Amino acid sequence: MTHPIDTYIEANMTATLAELTTLCAQPSISATGEGITECAELVARMLQTRGFDASIEPTPGHPVVVANLDVGSDKTIILYNHYDVQPAEPLALWDSPAFEPTIRDGAFYARGAIDDKGNLMARFAALDALKAVDGTYPCNIKFVVEGEEEIGSVNLPPFIRDNADRLAADACIWEFGGVNHEDNPRTYLGLRGICYVELSVRTADVDAHSGRGGSIFPNAAWRLVWALNTLKDADERILIPGFYDNVIPASDVDWDLMHKLPDPADTYKELYGVKEFLKGDKRGAALIHQEVFEPTCTICGLTSGYQGPGSKTVLPAVASAKVDFRLVPNQTPAEILEKLRAHLDANGFEDIEMTFMGGEAPGRTDPQHPFVQMTIDTAREVYQREPVVDPMAGGSGPNHAFLEYLNVPVVTMGASYPGSNVHAPNEHMRLDLFDLAIKHTAHLIKRFASS
Amino acid sequence: MTHPIDTYIEANMTATLAELTTLCAQPSISATGEGITECAELVARMLQTRGFDASIEPTPGHPVVVANLDVGSDKTIILYNHYDVQPAEPLALWDSPAFEPTIRDGAFYARGAIDDKGNLMARFAALDALKAVDGTYPCNIKFVVEGEEEIGSVNLPPFIRDNADRLAADACIWEFGGVNHEDNPRTYLGLRGICYVELSVRTADVDAHSGRGGSIFPNAAWRLVWALNTLKDADERILIPGFYDNVIPASDVDWDLMHKLPDPADTYKELYGVKEFLKGDKRGAALIHQEVFEPTCTICGLTSGYQGPGSKTVLPAVASAKVDFRLVPNQTPAEILEKLRAHLDANGFEDIEMTFMGGEAPGRTDPQHPFVQMTIDTAREVYQREPVVDPMAGGSGPNHAFLEYLNVPVVTMGASYPGSNVHAPNEHMRLDLFDLAIKHTAHLIKRFASS
Repeated sequence: MTHPIDTYIEANMTATLAELTTLCAQPSISATGEGITECAELVARMLQTRGFDASIEPTPGHPVVVANLDVGSDKTIILYNHYDVQPAEPLALWDSPAFEPTIRDGAFYARGAIDDKGNLMARFAALDALKAVDGTYPCNIKFVVEGEEEIGSVNLPPFIRDNADRLAADACIWEFGGVNHEDNPRTYLGLRGICYVELSVRTADVDAHSGRGGSIFPNAAWRLVWALNTLKDADERILIPGFYDNVIPASDVDWDLMHKLPDPADTYKELYGVKEFLKGDKRGAALIHQEVFEPTCTICGLTSGYQGPGSKTVLPAVASAKVDFRLVPNQTPAEILEKLRAHLDANGFEDIEMTFMGGEAPGRTDPQHPFVQMTIDTAREVYQREPVVDPMAGGSGPNHAFLEYLNVPVVTMGASYPGSNVHAPNEHMRLDLFDLAIKHTAHLIKRFASS
Repeated sequence: MTHPIDTYIEANMTATLAELTTLCAQPSISATGEGITECAELVARMLQTRGFDASIEPTPGHPVVVANLDVGSDKTIILYNHYDVQPAEPLALWDSPAFEPTIRDGAFYARGAIDDKGNLMARFAALDALKAVDGTYPCNIKFVVEGEEEIGSVNLPPFIRDNADRLAADACIWEFGGVNHEDNPRTYLGLRGICYVELSVRTADVDAHSGRGGSIFPNAAWRLVWALNTLKDADERILIPGFYDNVIPASDVDWDLMHKLPDPADTYKELYGVKEFLKGDKRGAALIHQEVFEPTCTICGLTSGYQGPGSKTVLPAVASAKVDFRLVPNQTPAEILEKLRAHLDANGFEDIEMTFMGGEAPGRTDPQHPFVQMTIDTAREVYQREPVVDPMAGGSGPNHAFLEYLNVPVVTMGASYPGSNVHAPNEHMRLDLFDLAIKHTAHLIKRFASS
C-alpha cells in the first residue's frame, strides 16, 4: 500500500520538475559571481511561497539565504544546502546546454541538477508533500542556503557562529548524498578537515647558470626538497612534532560500520591504476579506516626551474609546493599551521615561506545518535535496500560549524549516484533517485518530528 | 715600435671585417639546421683560399669542417672553433637584425659576432698576417670547426677519437676567450664535465582527489622528494656511494693561480642577489676553488601536480626532476650514471626512472705546460696588462676529447668581454678586443712555432 505522502510526491512530480527547471535555468556561478544575486532572490521567493520567513543575509562574500518556519513544535530541523554551482566549462562537452535543463533517458540534465539544486528541490518537494497530506509541517524547519560552497565556504562557519541563536535546531540534513555503486542508500556521518598551504622559497634574485652557480649558490629546489622531506617519511609517518596529539581513534562502533561497508579495494585499483595501497596492501575495513580516519600530508604540486623538454642548465632561485593536510577529529587547521611553522623553524627552514590557502576543521556525528538511526531506518523503508553508513568521508566541508556551533547531528542524504558527473559536463540526476530522495526526506522529517 | 705583424693586422682590418660580415650574414643555427650546410661550405672555402686542404666531414649530426696545412714543420697547432650559432630569438630585442652585421659605437653586432665567428675570423686574420709578413705559416696548422657546439657537441668527441691520427698536433687553441671585467686577458685551462639526467616517477594511471586518495594512494611527488633527498644532504655533501672516489684535488700550483685571480664574491652577490654562499661564506681563492674544483648535484627543475594559482586538492600520479651533475677530473658521466642507478635501487627507489639527457667528461691542461706559459707571455705583451689564469672553469665543453685523444694542451683565447651578450640579443664584439685577439693569436702561434 502506497503511503499518502509517496502518492502525493509522485502526483506532484511534474510541478516539482518545473520548479527545478526554473532554478537550474538561473546560472549562479560562485567563482565568477554570475547570477548569484538573482539566484539568492529566487531561492528566497521559493521559500516564502512555502510560508517561510526567508531573508538574504550579507557576508563578506556571497549572501546566505536563511529561512525559518515555526509551527510551535518542540523539535526543529535545519537543512543546509547551497544555491551556487561550479562553472559549466568546458561547454563543448555538454550534450545539451548547461543552463537549459533537459530531461532525457530518465534523467534531468543541467549544471546544478544534482549539486545542489536537485537536492534543494528534493527538500522543497518533501515539505510540499508533508504539508499537503497533513495540512501543516510536522516540526519547525530552518534553512541555510549558502552561495559559496563551490569556492570553499570561507564565510559560512563565522556566519553560523555569529547566528547560532537564530539557527538553533535539534538535527541537520546535509546538502549532498545518494546511493553507492550498487544503488544502496549511503550516509556519511563525518568529514575530514583540511589545511592547505603553499610552501615557497627564494634563494636569489635571479636564476643562475648551473655551471657557475652549482657549487656556490643556494638552490631553491634543494631547499624545498629538504624541507618537505622533514614533513613525512617514506613510511607515511608525519614527522611534525605533536601532529597526531589530538587525533581521536576510531571507536568499536566505527569499526563495526566500516566492516559492513563494501570493500573498495578492487574498484580503486582499477579506477586509478594503483598497484599497491600505502602502508601495506590492505582491503576492506582496514583500507577504509586508513582512507578516512588517518590524517594526511599530501604534496599536491611541485614547481621549480626548468620543466620543459630536454635539458636546461639552470640553478633555480625560486621553488614552491602545494601541500594539503587532511585532518581528523579533533585536529584544527590553526593548530596544524602553528605546529608546521614551529617544525620548519626548528629544522633550520626559516627561509621557507608558508602561505595558508584555506582550511576547514574536521567534524563528525556520533553513529549512535538517534537521528542517525532514524535516517537509516527511513532509508531502508523508502529504498527497500540495506543502507550503508560511513562513519567518515575522506573529503572536507563546513559540517564542523553546524556540529560545533549548533550542536546538532548531521546526516547526508540526496539524489546523486556515482555517475552523476558532479562538477563535470553532463551533470545529471536520475529521476528514480530524485523520487526516492524526496520520499526519504519527507519520511525522515516526519519520523524526527514524532520522535 | 710596432711589430710588422701588428702593422699588417691593423692595415688589413677593413678586409678582415668584410670577410667576417660575409660569415655572420650566413645564418647557421644548429638547433633548427637553418643554413648549416651553406655555412660549412663557406668556412671550407675560406680555409681553401688560405691554402688549406679543407673538407666537410659528415657526422650523425651536422658536419665538421676539417682543414690541414702542412709546411713541413716539426710543430703542429690545432685550432678548435664552431661555425654554428644560437637561435636569434627574441628578434624584437635586437637593435639591428641578427643576420645583418652592423658596426656601431666601436663594436661589430651580429648573431655569432663573438660566439664563435668573430673568434674564428681572429684566427684567420692572425694566419693572414703571419703569412703576409713572413711569406709562409710558421708551423703546420690544423682546424676542427664543428657545427653542433650550441647543441651540446654530441658527435664531436667520437669524431676526434676516430680521427685522432689525422688530427695529431702538439697544442690546441680553444674556441672561446677574451678579457675579464677589468679588461685583463683571461685564460681557462680546464672545463668541468657534466652528467644531466631526468628522474621521473609514475605511481598511478591518473591523478586522484587528495581527500580520497591522500591516505591510501602512493604520491609521485612524495616519491620524488624522498628519492632526491637521498642524493645530497643540506650540508651539500653528495651521498651517492663512491661519488667522490675519482676526484683529483687542486694542486699547489692550482691554488697559486686561484690566489692571483680577482675575488668574485662581491660581484656574484650583487649580480644574483645571493646573501650567503654555500658551505660557509667564503671569498677569494677559497670561493673560486669551491666554484670550479668541486663536483655538484644541482636540481635544475621540479614538476608535479597542480602549479597554478590558489589551491587544487589533487594527488599527483607523475613527478619529475631535472638534475645536473658537474664533474671534475677524473669523474666520468658513465661512472656517475652507474653509481646513481645503484644508489637509487639500494635505497628502494627502483620506481624512479632515470633518463640520460647528455654528458661530457671533464678535462684540464697542466698549468705548468710550456704552451700555457707562452700563452700568458704573449698575452701580457699584446694586451700590456697582466693576464689572469683560471686553472678550471665552472662550465662544460668537449675539450676532454682533445686532451684525451690528441694529448694536447688546450688554452682559451678570443675577443669577448663580459658584456658581449653571448647567446642574447645584440651579441657584439668590441673592435679593440678583436684587434688584440688577432695579434695575440698571431704572436702565440709564432712563439709556439719557434719554441
